[in-house]
Amino acid sequence: MSSTFGTVFRVSTFGESHCKGVGAIVDGCPPRLPLTEADIQPQLDRRRPGQSSVSTPRQESDTVTILSGTENGITLGTPIGLFVPNQDQRPGDYKEMSNIPRPSHADYTYQMKYGIRASSGGGRSSARETIGRVAAGAIAEKWLRLNHSVEIVAWVSAVGALEAPEIDASAISRADVDATIIRCPHAETAARMIDAVKAAREAGDSLGGIVTCVCRNVPPGLGEPVFDKLEAKLAHAMLSLPATKGFEIGSGFAGVRMPGSAHNDPFIRKGDRLGTRTNYSGGIQGGISNGEPILFRVAFKPPATISKPQATADFNGREAVLEAKGRHDPCVVNRAIPIVEAMAALVLMDAALIQRTRA
Amino acid sequence: MSSTFGTVFRVSTFGESHCKGVGAIVDGCPPRLPLTEADIQPQLDRRRPGQSSVSTPRQESDTVTILSGTENGITLGTPIGLFVPNQDQRPGDYKEMSNIPRPSHADYTYQMKYGIRASSGGGRSSARETIGRVAAGAIAEKWLRLNHSVEIVAWVSAVGALEAPEIDASAISRADVDATIIRCPHAETAARMIDAVKAAREAGDSLGGIVTCVCRNVPPGLGEPVFDKLEAKLAHAMLSLPATKGFEIGSGFAGVRMPGSAHNDPFIRKGDRLGTRTNYSGGIQGGISNGEPILFRVAFKPPATISKPQATADFNGREAVLEAKGRHDPCVVNRAIPIVEAMAALVLMDAALIQRTRA
Amino acid sequence: MSSTFGTVFRVSTFGESHCKGVGAIVDGCPPRLPLTEADIQPQLDRRRPGQSSVSTPRQESDTVTILSGTENGITLGTPIGLFVPNQDQRPGDYKEMSNIPRPSHADYTYQMKYGIRASSGGGRSSARETIGRVAAGAIAEKWLRLNHSVEIVAWVSAVGALEAPEIDASAISRADVDATIIRCPHAETAARMIDAVKAAREAGDSLGGIVTCVCRNVPPGLGEPVFDKLEAKLAHAMLSLPATKGFEIGSGFAGVRMPGSAHNDPFIRKGDRLGTRTNYSGGIQGGISNGEPILFRVAFKPPATISKPQATADFNGREAVLEAKGRHDPCVVNRAIPIVEAMAALVLMDAALIQRTRA
Amino acid sequence: MSSTFGTVFRVSTFGESHCKGVGAIVDGCPPRLPLTEADIQPQLDRRRPGQSSVSTPRQESDTVTILSGTENGITLGTPIGLFVPNQDQRPGDYKEMSNIPRPSHADYTYQMKYGIRASSGGGRSSARETIGRVAAGAIAEKWLRLNHSVEIVAWVSAVGALEAPEIDASAISRADVDATIIRCPHAETAARMIDAVKAAREAGDSLGGIVTCVCRNVPPGLGEPVFDKLEAKLAHAMLSLPATKGFEIGSGFAGVRMPGSAHNDPFIRKGDRLGTRTNYSGGIQGGISNGEPILFRVAFKPPATISKPQATADFNGREAVLEAKGRHDPCVVNRAIPIVEAMAALVLMDAALIQRTRA
Repeated sequence: MSSTFGTVFRVSTFGESHCKGVGAIVDGCPPRLPLTEADIQPQLDRRRPGQSSVSTPRQESDTVTILSGTENGITLGTPIGLFVPNQDQRPGDYKEMSNIPRPSHADYTYQMKYGIRASSGGGRSSARETIGRVAAGAIAEKWLRLNHSVEIVAWVSAVGALEAPEIDASAISRADVDATIIRCPHAETAARMIDAVKAAREAGDSLGGIVTCVCRNVPPGLGEPVFDKLEAKLAHAMLSLPATKGFEIGSGFAGVRMPGSAHNDPFIRKGDRLGTRTNYSGGIQGGISNGEPILFRVAFKPPATISKPQATADFNGREAVLEAKGRHDPCVVNRAIPIVEAMAALVLMDAALIQRTRA
Repeated sequence: MSSTFGTVFRVSTFGESHCKGVGAIVDGCPPRLPLTEADIQPQLDRRRPGQSSVSTPRQESDTVTILSGTENGITLGTPIGLFVPNQDQRPGDYKEMSNIPRPSHADYTYQMKYGIRASSGGGRSSARETIGRVAAGAIAEKWLRLNHSVEIVAWVSAVGALEAPEIDASAISRADVDATIIRCPHAETAARMIDAVKAAREAGDSLGGIVTCVCRNVPPGLGEPVFDKLEAKLAHAMLSLPATKGFEIGSGFAGVRMPGSAHNDPFIRKGDRLGTRTNYSGGIQGGISNGEPILFRVAFKPPATISKPQATADFNGREAVLEAKGRHDPCVVNRAIPIVEAMAALVLMDAALIQRTRA
Repeated sequence: MSSTFGTVFRVSTFGESHCKGVGAIVDGCPPRLPLTEADIQPQLDRRRPGQSSVSTPRQESDTVTILSGTENGITLGTPIGLFVPNQDQRPGDYKEMSNIPRPSHADYTYQMKYGIRASSGGGRSSARETIGRVAAGAIAEKWLRLNHSVEIVAWVSAVGALEAPEIDASAISRADVDATIIRCPHAETAARMIDAVKAAREAGDSLGGIVTCVCRNVPPGLGEPVFDKLEAKLAHAMLSLPATKGFEIGSGFAGVRMPGSAHNDPFIRKGDRLGTRTNYSGGIQGGISNGEPILFRVAFKPPATISKPQATADFNGREAVLEAKGRHDPCVVNRAIPIVEAMAALVLMDAALIQRTRA
Repeated sequence: MSSTFGTVFRVSTFGESHCKGVGAIVDGCPPRLPLTEADIQPQLDRRRPGQSSVSTPRQESDTVTILSGTENGITLGTPIGLFVPNQDQRPGDYKEMSNIPRPSHADYTYQMKYGIRASSGGGRSSARETIGRVAAGAIAEKWLRLNHSVEIVAWVSAVGALEAPEIDASAISRADVDATIIRCPHAETAARMIDAVKAAREAGDSLGGIVTCVCRNVPPGLGEPVFDKLEAKLAHAMLSLPATKGFEIGSGFAGVRMPGSAHNDPFIRKGDRLGTRTNYSGGIQGGISNGEPILFRVAFKPPATISKPQATADFNGREAVLEAKGRHDPCVVNRAIPIVEAMAALVLMDAALIQRTRA
C-alpha cells in the first residue's frame, strides 16, 4: 500500500523535498474530536530541523494547515487534509550527487525501482516525508489520550557506543526527555552524547543511536492474533522509518538468554484487573495488549549522508569519490523522538478502533 | 486484516488446535506454475512436531492437501486452498489451565479481547497456525526460485546464551542447516545447544534463541518507499510469529555503534550491475532491495509453556500455582526455521509482484 | 482483492468445479455468536442444484462443515473455515468445449487473462463458487438478526418478459417466496414463469430474470460517504455475481423520469425517529442508510450455456458450431435468491462493524 | 475504506465545501509518465460549475495544482498530491437548513452516522468532492491512452423522460459530446433537453438523466474473477457518485427479456484476435474484459436540492416547510460526464496494473 498506513484509521502521506510541500490525509478519524492546528504543531516543532546545535542547520518552520475534515475546531468524521509547505530548498546542494549514488542512501535503489529519481536525491526517503506521519500521529495521540488516557513517551537511550542507564518507564514524561537537546533523560549521559555528536559533525561523520518508547494505559485487548499482532504492527511502523535497522519489544534480544521460568511474567492482581509482576512481554502477549506498559526499542543507523569524502562508484560502475554538500544531521535520534511517538500512536489508534469491531 | 497477509499475493490462514484442521487460501498466485503437494510437504516436514529429541513428542504427520487452484499439477491463477487435518489432540492436557491463565501465554489476552477463548488454550496463538504459513510460503518460494533464482536459507545462530560464530551467508544451504537436529550449521556449537535444550527439558524449563536468515538473488527494486519498506514488511512478518521479541536487518542494533563513515556500504561494480563492498545495509536501502543478500535476525523468547510449577494468579486474581501438563517444545528455534523462511518468501513474493505494477 | 470481500468482516472463497471442493474463510466475525452448521445449511439447501424441475438436474447435497473458528457451537472471534466437497463431477461433459470457447461464457477471457483455464470450463466463474458466499452470508445474517433484527428477503420479480406486479416489501417473508419453485411470490405470475422456463429448456434455450431484494430494520448510519457508499458496495456485491447485468436502488432507472419535487422523500416522524413518507431513495441517502427499508433490483441475463447449436468460432478463429452437453440451468434467478440475500448480508455486516469505529 | 479507491492505483480524496479546498493523493502511478497540470485541467473545466445556462451559476475556476510526485513534468512513481482551493463560498446559503434536513439529501444520514455534520450541508456528499476524482482520473486516462490507446467517452443519453436515439459507440468523440451544453450528441434531442432543464429551473424543480459511457481499446484480460469482476468495480465506482440510482452493463435490464440464444455473443475472428459479432456482454465476460468496447449506463436521480417549497419535518420531527436557497444544478448529468469518465479510468487503470501481476 506504499504511502498509506492503517486499516480503519488510515494515513496517506505525500510530498518530497523538491516539491511544493508535504502532507497527509487522515481518514477514519472519529467525529466530534476537538482538533485544531495547535494540537498538531507542538510535535512538528519537536521534529523540525534547526532546533539545536546537534541537528541540521536547515531552517524550516514546518507550519501545518488543516485543509479539511474539521469545522469550528471539531472533527467531522471526514478525511482530515494536512499540509506543510516546503521552504528552505537549495537544489544546488544535490548537483554533485547526480552521477554518484550516495552509499547506503536510496539514490541507487530508487533508480533501480522507478528508472527515475528526484533531483533532490532521496525523494520520498527524505526525512521530510515524516512530517505527515507526525501530524497524523498527533491526532491519534489526542484521541487516545482523551478516550483511554494513553501516554506515549520516547527518549534517546543510546548514541553511538554511549548507552544511558535504565530509565523508569513508568514515570518518564516528555518534559524529562526535552530537558536536553539530545533528548536523553539521563543528564550525564546526555552531556556526553552531545559532545559525541558535535565531534562527529566536526569530523564530517555521523552517529547512530537507539530510541526507547513506552506506551502507558493501553487498554487490554488491542492487536489482532496471527499476522497483525500488535508488536508486528509496531515493528512494521518503526522499520518503516528512515535509517532504522532493528526493533525489539519487552525483553527483546536479551530475552533470548533467559530461561522460560525466569522470563515468564507471573500474573498478580492489580486493582480490579490482572497485571503481571514483571514485564518481559513488553505489554503484549499473543499479539494482544495485556494492559501493562508497552515497551520497545528502535535502532537507528548513523545517517548515510556525511561530508567526509567516500570512495565509491558512480552509476556506471566507475570508481569515484563522493564529497556530499548540504546541511545534514550528524545524528537523527533526537529528532526521531516525535516520529517514533507518532508511529506508535498510529498503530495503537488503528488497533483501538478495530477492537471495537471485535468485541 | 488479522488472518490475511499480503497485498497482491495474499495468504489467509484458519484453524486452531482443537478443531478439524488448519489451512490457508493463497490468492494471487500467478498461473502456470507447476505445483503439487510434493512442492509443499518438505517444508511442512521440517516444521512438524516429533522430528527429533529436542522437540515436542507430539506426533502429527501434517500431510497437506491442495483443495483447489491447480489442475494437472499446474496453477490456474485462482485461489489455492490448502488443508492439513488435526490428529493428535488431547484436550485433557489443557484442563488444568482453564482457570489459571498461563504466564506469558495468550490465554489472558484472548479472554480480554474476545470474552471467550478456545478450551485448548492458545487458539490461534498455537504453533499449529503456522502450518498454513509454511504451506503458502513453499508456493511463494517455488515461484521466486523459478523466476528469480531466489534462495532463502535460515538457521539457528543462538540458543540461550550459546551463540554460533558468524556463518558464511553467501554459501550456506538447507542441507548444511539440517545437518544437526538443532539446525545450527556450526557443528560444535550445535552439539552444545542440543545438550542445553535437553537439560532445559529435564528441568521442566525452556530456552530462547536467535534465527538468522539470508535471501540471495533478490532482484533490485523490490519494496515500497515509506510505509511498506521491504525491511518493514519483513519485520512485520517476523514479529507476527509466535514467541518473537526482536528483529534486526543488516548491521542491526550493533550498527548503532559504528560511525557513518564505516557503516556506509561503498558501491563497486559487480559484473553488469552495481553492488556494494560491505553489506551493513542488509540488502535493502531506502526500503528497496539493492541486489545484495538480504540478511536479518529474529529473536525468539523461551517458550512460555513449561512444566516447572509457577506461582501466578488465576483469572479472579487469586494466587495459584500452575503446573502445565502436555507435550511442549523446550525450545522452538529449530522448528521455526521453515517458518521464518516461509514468511520471508511471502514478503518477497508480494513485493516482486507489486514491483511489476511500479516499473 | 480478487477472492476476498469486505474490510472488517472479510470473506475469502476458494474452489472450482473440478477440484476437491469449495469453501470460504470468514475472518472478523465477532466472538460469542452461537453458530453451527445448522445455521448455514438452510440457505445452501435453497441454493443447491436439483431442487426442482426448473433447475439443473445435477445432484449435489452441498453439505457444509465448519472447519474452525467455533467451539461448543459458539464463535471464538477467529477465522471460520467452511468447506463443501464436490461430488457430481462429469468431466466428460466439458470435452466438447476445449477448443471452442462458449459464447458469453468465461472460457475465452480466462484464457486471455491467465494463459490457462480449468478443463471443466468456467473455473471460478462456475456457480459453485457462490457456495462459499452463501455460507458466509448465513453467518452475517444471523449476527444481523440477533443484533439489529435485520430481515433480508429476495424474490424473483421477472423471468424473461414476464414481470410480477409490485410486491409489498414491508411484509414479504421467505416462506412467501418459497411457496413456488420459481420463487416469485405472485402465484399467478409464478405459474406462467414456470411454464416459460420449461419451454425454454425444451427448446435448449435459457431465460433471464430480475431479483428484487428488501433489507428491513437496517439501522441508520451504515455506509461510508464517498467511495464506499452503501449502495456502491451493494452494487459491487451484486455485479460480482455470475450472469448479472444491472443493479438499481430505490427508484432506479425509472426515477430518472421523475422531477425532483416528486422524487424527494419528505421526512416525517416515525415513532422516536425520523422516517420518510416515500422511499424513492431505497433506504440510503448520501451513501448512508436512513433506517427505511433498503430496496434494490438485480438483472440476470439468460444463462450462456444452452444446448441449442451455436454458430461461433474456435480459439483459432475458425468457424465452428458448438453444441454444449451437460446439465445446466435454463434460468438461474430462483437459485440466485439465497445468493443475493447472502451478498446483501455481507455488505450490511461489514458496514455495521465499520460503523462501530466511526461513531 | 471510505475515501480511498483502488488497490494498486489508489486515489484518496479529501475536502468539503466549507473548508480550504479539495484534493486527492494518487498513489501507485507508474513512474516516467509525462504529467503536468495541463493534462488534468481540461476535465476539471468540463466539470466545473458555471459553464453554461443549464448549470448552477456558482463560479469557481477549480484550478488544480500538482503538489508532489512529479519533477520536470514527469512522474516519479511517488504519490501525486493534487489540490484545488475553494473560492465561492456563501455559508449564509445554508443557514435555513440547519434545523430542517433536506429531503433525499445527506443532512439527516450524516447526522445519524457522525453525530455532527458540516454547516454547509452535505459535507463530503457535496459535488465538490468529485474534483479529486476527476483530477485523478485524468492521470489514469493519460496512462491508459499512452499505453493501450484506451478511449473513454461518456454522454447524456436521457434527461427526464427525453431519451436520445441510440448513438454509435464505436465512433463517438468528446468533441461530439461537447457540441451542445447538455452533452447529448443527438442535436435534436439535446435541444429539447436544454428546454426541459430550463423549464425545470424556472419551476424551482430538477430533472434526472442517464449517462452512457463507452471504453474502447481496453485490452482483454482485465478484471478479477469472483468479487472484483470488472463490471462489479465499475458498478461500485458509478454508484459511489452522488445522485446515482442504477448501473447496467451491455444489455443490462433489457437483456433480461432476451433468450440466451439471442443474447449470447458468438465469436468471430477480428484481425489477429477473437472478437464477438454482437456485444450484449458489454465487453466483459466472466468479470474479465474481452477486448470489445465496454458499454455501460448510469442512472442519475433529479437533484435533491430544489427551490420549490417542500413539506417535510425538522430534526425534531416537527412538520416544517423547507425553501432551499443557494445556487444549484437543476440537472447534473451534463456536468457528470467527466466524472463518469474519470471513475471508469480509475477502474481500468487499477485493473490494468493488477493484471501485470496475474499474467
